Amino acid sequence: MGYHGGRPGQTRPGGRTARVRAAVLRAAGDALAEHGVDALDLADVARRAEVGKTTVYRRWGTVPALVADLLVDMAEQSSPRADTGTLLGDLTANARLVQSTLVDPRQGSLFKAVIAAATCDDRTAEALHGFYAARIGEWAPCVEKAVDRGELAPGTDAREVIRAVSAPLYYRLLASGDPLDEAAADRAAAAAAAGARAGVYVRSAD
Amino acid sequence: MGYHGGRPGQTRPGGRTARVRAAVLRAAGDALAEHGVDALDLADVARRAEVGKTTVYRRWGTVPALVADLLVDMAEQSSPRADTGTLLGDLTANARLVQSTLVDPRQGSLFKAVIAAATCDDRTAEALHGFYAARIGEWAPCVEKAVDRGELAPGTDAREVIRAVSAPLYYRLLASGDPLDEAAADRAAAAAAAGARAGVYVRSAD
Repeated sequence: MGYHGGRPGQTRPGGRTARVRAAVLRAAGDALAEHGVDALDLADVARRAEVGKTTVYRRWGTVPALVADLLVDMAEQSSPRADTGTLLGDLTANARLVQSTLVDPRQGSLFKAVIAAATCDDRTAEALHGFYAARIGEWAPCVEKAVDRGELAPGTDAREVIRAVSAPLYYRLLASGDPLDEAAADRAAAAAAAGARAGVYVRSAD
Repeated sequence: MGYHGGRPGQTRPGGRTARVRAAVLRAAGDALAEHGVDALDLADVARRAEVGKTTVYRRWGTVPALVADLLVDMAEQSSPRADTGTLLGDLTANARLVQSTLVDPRQGSLFKAVIAAATCDDRTAEALHGFYAARIGEWAPCVEKAVDRGELAPGTDAREVIRAVSAPLYYRLLASGDPLDEAAADRAAAAAAAGARAGVYVRSAD
């Protein structure tokens, strides 16, 4: 299973280099989910991945570099956007993917670990922002299509609507601790759609 | 300056015990903001606070206990709710307080440090949830008054509207890294108000 739902049945491009990368990143994700970033150790990752230590040190070198590559891979493996034909349908599909990812024990722990690491490491923060930029970019066309269909005003900031879907779910995970259930996901999607329809996300002229 | 804006001119209750607590929590907050929770050390906090080490160990004992007490104090020092007469006015005041707190160098670092610590320590997570529960409870009457004025439907979940104001700001701080400016605060307030007016936060019957 990939990130934010993964792509069922997707096979990665072949080749030994790609297989080594996949094994190392899977092992790094497991280790992060289990023990957090402070305990992450390249030699331990190599052992878990059954890959030579020298290979891991040569290719990734440092923990922040390995975490950054994991985030690139998570963005690449992330689920493609839905196309249900309505804004609310698409945003609800997106919210449920985010919610099910964050409550998944392995993936929820992994996101918490990477977000915690990003609070005190600039390179990890940059990689994390890249992950969200890629994911938000993947889903933004759902909003652009709603503008084309006349559901939303022209000039609506598509990326800001997609951010609004995720924000309440991450706030529960990281800050308030309130239940992170499917009802919360559906409410997050409905609120983002209501805000978009009310014109809250229309870019200002300046 | 307190948390989420503080209460200007507020004086704490007197007495030596209260003064020692204030000095220790101020020192703990400084240390957390500078170096994060991993480097937090009770002896260092005692030295910064110019308080005997024994006092700090006897009263707080462990780092998670000290962080938990800091969060209780942050909730107590948190700004009282606004009363502008309109839902949008009150939510905008709230959003701007949260935004100015999160971009303040000391307080932003402090929140990041505590949130990161909460991802891997249950006691800190519980204290963090208590902080948000107290703060959300302080501001919820802004929404209840809007229901009384007829601005919102009866049955609107006031706490969920307040959470919706903060969520996009924390998402930017912790996840996406997008600009955390006053425009983002005003948009967060407008979106929460739009969602509330559209009935998104009305509690379901079951």
